[in-house]
Amino acid sequence: MSTTTEPRPTCSIARTLEVIGDRWSVLILREAHRGRTRFADFRDVLGIAPNILTNRLAALVEAGVLEKREYRPEGERTRSSYHLTPAGVDLKLVLAALQQWGDVHEPRKEGPTVLRRNTRTGGLATVGFLDENGNAVPDRDVTFEPVPGGPADRLIWR
Amino acid sequence: MSTTTEPRPTCSIARTLEVIGDRWSVLILREAHRGRTRFADFRDVLGIAPNILTNRLAALVEAGVLEKREYRPEGERTRSSYHLTPAGVDLKLVLAALQQWGDVHEPRKEGPTVLRRNTRTGGLATVGFLDENGNAVPDRDVTFEPVPGGPADRLIWR
Repeated sequence: MSTTTEPRPTCSIARTLEVIGDRWSVLILREAHRGRTRFADFRDVLGIAPNILTNRLAALVEAGVLEKREYRPEGERTRSSYHLTPAGVDLKLVLAALQQWGDVHEPRKEGPTVLRRNTRTGGLATVGFLDENGNAVPDRDVTFEPVPGGPADRLIWR
Repeated sequence: MSTTTEPRPTCSIARTLEVIGDRWSVLILREAHRGRTRFADFRDVLGIAPNILTNRLAALVEAGVLEKREYRPEGERTRSSYHLTPAGVDLKLVLAALQQWGDVHEPRKEGPTVLRRNTRTGGLATVGFLDENGNAVPDRDVTFEPVPGGPADRLIWR
């Protein structure tokens, strides 16, 4: 979570982690990507304390990845629902990359819990590097290259 | 970081975040992917307090993504260096996915700080979904599908 005392990091990785770098936040986002929107549904499937859930949902709304809406079930009081914004939708790839690494390098003996399914073909999808033509690039061929004159050239870069 | 009081999460995303879900840890891993191995180099480029760096390096070794080795510079005492394991090397894709999202959705006004370069062609590489033949799959065509009988079918899944 972002703190107000630290300056905003220049590193994109660090800025992204300020949004999702909390276990509860990613679990909420995972459920949002599975179509859940209601407070009670998030609470029940995650077994999360309501005060923590309130806090994390507010942070995800503040970060711009969830949008809060109101709805009123027949004969009940108004309630809130939480919907992925376009930035939240784009986290699918980040969640999938985290998931794929965990499947391989922190496996459960019972196997993976979730598959990434290509709904158009029925096949499985993996996360990988792509070139400009949409073809796979082996990981070993990709390097992180600092932009010249950018913060990576400064004495301290974080 | 993993705590000893909580059970190991069944979700791969959560397990991966137990390894890298800390801002300092990802910044250390970013520098490891840029070829740095020495304590003093990590300390200087990140401007991180030595006690925090010691702690995070030990956690990354414990998690199996860095390997600690000894070396002795001519006429000096023995020192430690830290090298990516195969699991650490595989985090390249996770770091790149976090970076790509941050570039787009948490941009700096000065632009991105790092590019992902395809060293074989000189072009840029992006992170995306791939099918079994190594061709790009649009994000919208990929869904997270729980494995039948897995923890996603249980009452609480985290």
